[in-house]
Amino acid sequence: MPLADVCVPALDRAFLFGDAAYEVVRLYGGRPWRLAAHLDRFERSLGELRIGVDRRTLEERLAALLRHAQPGDASLYVQRTRGAGPRTHVPAPDLVPNELLWVQPLAPDHGDAKRRSGLAVTLCEDLRWARCDVKSVNLLGNCLAAMAARERGADEAVLVDASGALSEGTHATVLLVLDGTLVTPPLTSNILPSVTRAVVLDLARAAGLAVAERRVERAAVERCEEMLLCGTLTEVTAVVRVDGRAVGDGRPGPVAARLQALLRAAVAAEAREITGLGV
Amino acid sequence: MPLADVCVPALDRAFLFGDAAYEVVRLYGGRPWRLAAHLDRFERSLGELRIGVDRRTLEERLAALLRHAQPGDASLYVQRTRGAGPRTHVPAPDLVPNELLWVQPLAPDHGDAKRRSGLAVTLCEDLRWARCDVKSVNLLGNCLAAMAARERGADEAVLVDASGALSEGTHATVLLVLDGTLVTPPLTSNILPSVTRAVVLDLARAAGLAVAERRVERAAVERCEEMLLCGTLTEVTAVVRVDGRAVGDGRPGPVAARLQALLRAAVAAEAREITGLGV
Repeated sequence: MPLADVCVPALDRAFLFGDAAYEVVRLYGGRPWRLAAHLDRFERSLGELRIGVDRRTLEERLAALLRHAQPGDASLYVQRTRGAGPRTHVPAPDLVPNELLWVQPLAPDHGDAKRRSGLAVTLCEDLRWARCDVKSVNLLGNCLAAMAARERGADEAVLVDASGALSEGTHATVLLVLDGTLVTPPLTSNILPSVTRAVVLDLARAAGLAVAERRVERAAVERCEEMLLCGTLTEVTAVVRVDGRAVGDGRPGPVAARLQALLRAAVAAEAREITGLGV
Repeated sequence: MPLADVCVPALDRAFLFGDAAYEVVRLYGGRPWRLAAHLDRFERSLGELRIGVDRRTLEERLAALLRHAQPGDASLYVQRTRGAGPRTHVPAPDLVPNELLWVQPLAPDHGDAKRRSGLAVTLCEDLRWARCDVKSVNLLGNCLAAMAARERGADEAVLVDASGALSEGTHATVLLVLDGTLVTPPLTSNILPSVTRAVVLDLARAAGLAVAERRVERAAVERCEEMLLCGTLTEVTAVVRVDGRAVGDGRPGPVAARLQALLRAAVAAEAREITGLGV
């Protein structure tokens, strides 16, 4: 049914408490990219929140949706809540989780214009909670930062935590090229174990690039050769300006271009192997 | 209509991002207690989130609901979201906020049993975001702490921030009696400006108690004379055990009893003056 017509119970805990987890999966030519990794993470998020899920049932629902929707290039969204019940912080023991799934077509060149031009970002205070490794819908801090970026004329925000280290974009992993090394913050309870992050780091290592997962100080932004964001829909996109100041020569750099090309090549290579849901 | 039948759009940003603010108001004998203070705070929360609201329209809706529902002792819940629209972190500019209001009857002796026995609490890490002064529905950290408390056999959690200071209960203000002084954490961006907190501190000062709003170290819990929680539905309730260890002599103390009596007396005194919505 049309997404705008879908309703959910007002007493669903996602609506009242943000008590739900979600995933976004990219489909290329109708094939979900790294679906198993996304579902692994989804199971982990739900496990951390103590929301049950049956993987097989979920996979069957996803398969039915994709058979019905016949998407080409698209994004797939899945959200699972703890269920609807009386509004109490401690949930009633008998809640039945609700699940919302949708696919939305993407233009075949989705994001390409920004990948060519590069992004302007602004640094924002990271106001989010201390479990951003869990992909929950408690996303108000992300939204406020994204809104602040737009008001400042930037495309996106990069978050700086209370200790002065970079954490993430509002919905992407942040990476820097520093003295020739691709550097990104390590996976902690504040960093989403991004599927694209793992793929990109693997591709970079396989291509012979030096890679380091370590703390990135805010000041490193001013001396890095390149800055990039990566994520499911972002893929690999260069950052060319931070708060109005050029990164490198102010144009997308060679590492960003190379990693994006490697990512698209990996997608193309797997397209020949994957059948059905690819799980 | 029955609350369990109420539906909201799945694309409402409260459901997808926790992008909404709310209030809970206590009604005594059909009269909303401190409604103006709650609506002031609601306006402030919505303002911080840049969600618009027309106070007059909201008051008219509340008045119509109360005329219709004819509640006696009850809780009134109101939530206002940024609206429903395509799922993007930066909201579309033309969203229309959605509002959900309900009243639920409370037993006349709501909370009295726990006020007589006192509460058992557990100390939990405060995982919440850095803007808990905004009463948003990003409440997953609160819910997880409340769930952990229940699992540990406690009634409620008291949150300890990363610096080792007490912040709040999962839906109440925390106060200690330390060397005869009623102490509670000061209002910062991590502390909700609780309506009941303000009333209770005023009542305490008027009654001649020494009151201090200052940082409360975790270690202070072990040497305090009394510990209490206060909030809209909690009113004033003593804490008698923290992680299995008795507070004071393990029974509700005199300051808690006195403040609860003063609060109920204030409610009774105002009941004679308040008419209609009392705004």
